[in-house]
Amino acid sequence: MYKVKVYVTLKESVLDPQGSAVKNSLHSLSYNEVEDVRIGKYMELTVQDTENLDQRIKEICEKLLANTVIEDYTYEIEEGVAQ
Amino acid sequence: MYKVKVYVTLKESVLDPQGSAVKNSLHSLSYNEVEDVRIGKYMELTVQDTENLDQRIKEICEKLLANTVIEDYTYEIEEGVAQ
Repeated sequence: MYKVKVYVTLKESVLDPQGSAVKNSLHSLSYNEVEDVRIGKYMELTVQDTENLDQRIKEICEKLLANTVIEDYTYEIEEGVAQ
Repeated sequence: MYKVKVYVTLKESVLDPQGSAVKNSLHSLSYNEVEDVRIGKYMELTVQDTENLDQRIKEICEKLLANTVIEDYTYEIEEGVAQ
Protein backbone atom coordinates (compact mmCIF):
# COMPACT_ATOMS: atom_id res chain seq x y z
CA MET A 1 0.00 0.00 0.00
CA TYR A 2 1.27 3.42 -0.88
CA LYS A 3 0.28 6.87 0.21
CA VAL A 4 0.55 9.39 -2.60
CA LYS A 5 0.53 13.09 -1.80
CA VAL A 6 -0.41 15.29 -4.72
CA TYR A 7 0.05 19.07 -4.71
CA VAL A 8 -1.70 21.08 -7.40
CA THR A 9 -0.84 24.76 -7.73
CA LEU A 10 -1.79 27.47 -10.18
CA LYS A 11 0.97 28.32 -12.64
CA GLU A 12 2.91 31.47 -11.72
CA SER A 13 1.43 33.42 -14.62
CA VAL A 14 -2.17 32.68 -13.66
CA LEU A 15 -4.04 35.14 -11.46
CA ASP A 16 -5.22 33.75 -8.13
CA PRO A 17 -8.25 35.76 -6.99
CA GLN A 18 -8.88 33.40 -4.07
CA GLY A 19 -5.31 33.98 -2.88
CA SER A 20 -5.74 37.75 -3.24
CA ALA A 21 -8.92 37.63 -1.19
CA VAL A 22 -7.14 35.71 1.58
CA LYS A 23 -4.22 38.16 1.46
CA ASN A 24 -6.60 41.11 1.81
CA SER A 25 -8.37 39.43 4.71
CA LEU A 26 -5.02 38.85 6.42
CA HIS A 27 -4.10 42.50 5.96
CA SER A 28 -7.41 43.59 7.45
CA LEU A 29 -6.60 41.34 10.43
CA SER A 30 -3.25 43.22 10.69
CA TYR A 31 -1.06 40.45 9.36
CA ASN A 32 0.67 42.90 7.07
CA GLU A 33 3.84 40.82 6.87
CA VAL A 34 2.09 38.48 4.46
CA GLU A 35 3.11 39.65 0.99
CA ASP A 36 1.49 37.05 -1.17
CA VAL A 37 -0.85 34.09 -0.92
CA ARG A 38 -1.29 31.37 -3.53
CA ILE A 39 -3.92 28.73 -3.01
CA GLY A 40 -3.73 25.22 -4.35
CA LYS A 41 -5.04 21.76 -3.68
CA TYR A 42 -3.58 18.95 -1.66
CA MET A 43 -4.73 15.39 -2.19
CA GLU A 44 -3.86 12.18 -0.38
CA LEU A 45 -4.41 8.98 -2.31
CA THR A 46 -4.19 5.54 -0.74
CA VAL A 47 -3.08 3.25 -3.54
CA GLN A 48 -2.59 -0.51 -3.73
CA ASP A 49 0.63 -2.01 -5.04
CA THR A 50 0.51 -1.92 -8.81
CA GLU A 51 2.82 -2.02 -11.80
CA ASN A 52 4.03 1.29 -13.21
CA LEU A 53 2.78 3.15 -10.16
CA ASP A 54 4.69 6.30 -11.01
CA GLN A 55 3.35 6.33 -14.56
CA ARG A 56 -0.21 5.72 -13.42
CA ILE A 57 -0.07 8.48 -10.82
CA LYS A 58 1.13 10.84 -13.54
CA GLU A 59 -1.82 9.85 -15.72
CA ILE A 60 -4.24 10.33 -12.83
CA CYS A 61 -2.87 13.82 -12.19
CA GLU A 62 -3.05 14.84 -15.84
CA LYS A 63 -6.46 13.33 -16.55
CA LEU A 64 -8.33 14.19 -13.42
CA LEU A 65 -6.57 15.97 -10.59
CA ALA A 66 -4.89 18.88 -12.33
CA ASN A 67 -5.90 21.10 -15.21
CA THR A 68 -2.48 21.28 -16.86
CA VAL A 69 -3.41 24.33 -18.90
CA ILE A 70 -3.38 26.52 -15.82
CA GLU A 71 -2.04 24.29 -13.06
CA ASP A 72 1.20 22.54 -12.15
CA TYR A 73 1.34 19.42 -10.05
CA THR A 74 3.92 17.55 -8.02
CA TYR A 75 3.56 14.35 -6.08
CA GLU A 76 5.35 12.23 -3.52
CA ILE A 77 4.94 8.49 -3.18
CA GLU A 78 5.36 7.09 0.33
CA GLU A 79 5.74 3.40 0.77
CA GLY A 80 4.25 1.01 3.27
CA VAL A 81 1.24 2.67 4.78
CA ALA A 82 -0.50 0.40 7.25
CA GLN A 83 -4.15 1.33 7.18
CA MET B 1 11.56 36.70 3.36
CA TYR B 2 10.03 33.37 4.17
CA LYS B 3 7.93 30.97 2.22
CA VAL B 4 5.33 29.24 4.35
CA LYS B 5 3.60 26.13 3.08
CA VAL B 6 0.32 25.37 4.80
CA TYR B 7 -1.51 22.08 4.42
CA VAL B 8 -5.11 21.87 5.57
CA THR B 9 -6.79 18.47 5.67
CA LEU B 10 -10.14 17.23 6.90
CA LYS B 11 -9.95 15.36 10.19
CA GLU B 12 -10.00 11.58 9.81
CA SER B 13 -13.47 11.30 11.29
CA VAL B 14 -15.02 13.80 8.88
CA LEU B 15 -16.63 12.52 5.69
CA ASP B 16 -15.05 13.78 2.48
CA PRO B 17 -17.69 13.70 -0.28
CA GLN B 18 -15.38 15.49 -2.72
CA GLY B 19 -12.74 12.80 -2.16
CA SER B 20 -15.34 10.06 -2.65
CA ALA B 21 -16.43 11.64 -5.93
CA VAL B 22 -12.83 11.73 -7.15
CA LYS B 23 -12.33 8.11 -6.07
CA ASN B 24 -15.43 7.03 -7.99
CA SER B 25 -14.28 8.93 -11.06
CA LEU B 26 -10.88 7.22 -10.86
CA HIS B 27 -12.57 3.82 -10.60
CA SER B 28 -14.70 4.59 -13.65
CA LEU B 29 -11.45 5.46 -15.48
CA SER B 30 -10.16 1.98 -14.44
CA TYR B 31 -7.74 3.20 -11.79
CA ASN B 32 -9.07 0.60 -9.40
CA GLU B 33 -5.85 0.50 -7.38
CA VAL B 34 -6.84 3.78 -5.74
CA GLU B 35 -8.46 2.82 -2.45
CA ASP B 36 -9.09 6.17 -0.91
CA VAL B 37 -8.87 9.85 -1.74
CA ARG B 38 -8.88 12.71 0.74
CA ILE B 39 -8.88 16.26 -0.51
CA GLY B 40 -7.40 19.20 1.30
CA LYS B 41 -5.98 22.62 0.66
CA TYR B 42 -2.42 23.72 0.06
CA MET B 43 -1.42 27.33 0.54
CA GLU B 44 1.85 29.14 -0.09
CA LEU B 45 2.39 32.34 1.84
CA THR B 46 5.24 34.73 1.13
CA VAL B 47 5.96 36.42 4.43
CA GLN B 48 8.34 39.19 5.44
CA ASP B 49 10.73 38.78 8.34
CA THR B 50 8.80 39.39 11.52
CA GLU B 51 8.99 38.65 15.23
CA ASN B 52 7.26 35.52 16.49
CA LEU B 53 6.80 34.24 12.96
CA ASP B 54 5.88 30.76 14.10
CA GLN B 55 3.27 32.08 16.53
CA ARG B 56 1.78 34.40 13.94
CA ILE B 57 1.54 31.66 11.32
CA LYS B 58 -0.29 29.52 13.87
CA GLU B 59 -2.74 32.36 14.51
CA ILE B 60 -3.28 32.88 10.78
CA CYS B 61 -4.04 29.18 10.33
CA GLU B 62 -6.46 29.06 13.22
CA LYS B 63 -8.23 32.33 12.47
CA LEU B 64 -8.49 32.18 8.72
CA LEU B 65 -6.99 29.29 6.83
CA ALA B 66 -8.34 26.26 8.67
CA ASN B 67 -11.64 25.51 10.33
CA THR B 68 -10.24 23.71 13.35
CA VAL B 69 -13.56 22.10 14.18
CA ILE B 70 -13.34 19.81 11.17
CA GLU B 71 -9.84 20.40 9.80
CA ASP B 72 -6.25 19.81 10.82
CA TYR B 73 -3.37 21.91 9.59
CA THR B 74 0.36 21.62 9.35
CA TYR B 75 2.86 24.09 8.02
CA GLU B 76 6.50 24.37 6.99
CA ILE B 77 8.51 27.56 7.10
CA GLU B 78 11.25 27.87 4.48
CA GLU B 79 13.83 30.56 4.86
CA GLY B 80 15.39 32.91 2.38
CA VAL B 81 13.10 33.07 -0.61
CA ALA B 82 14.39 35.52 -3.20
CA GLN B 83 11.35 36.88 -4.98
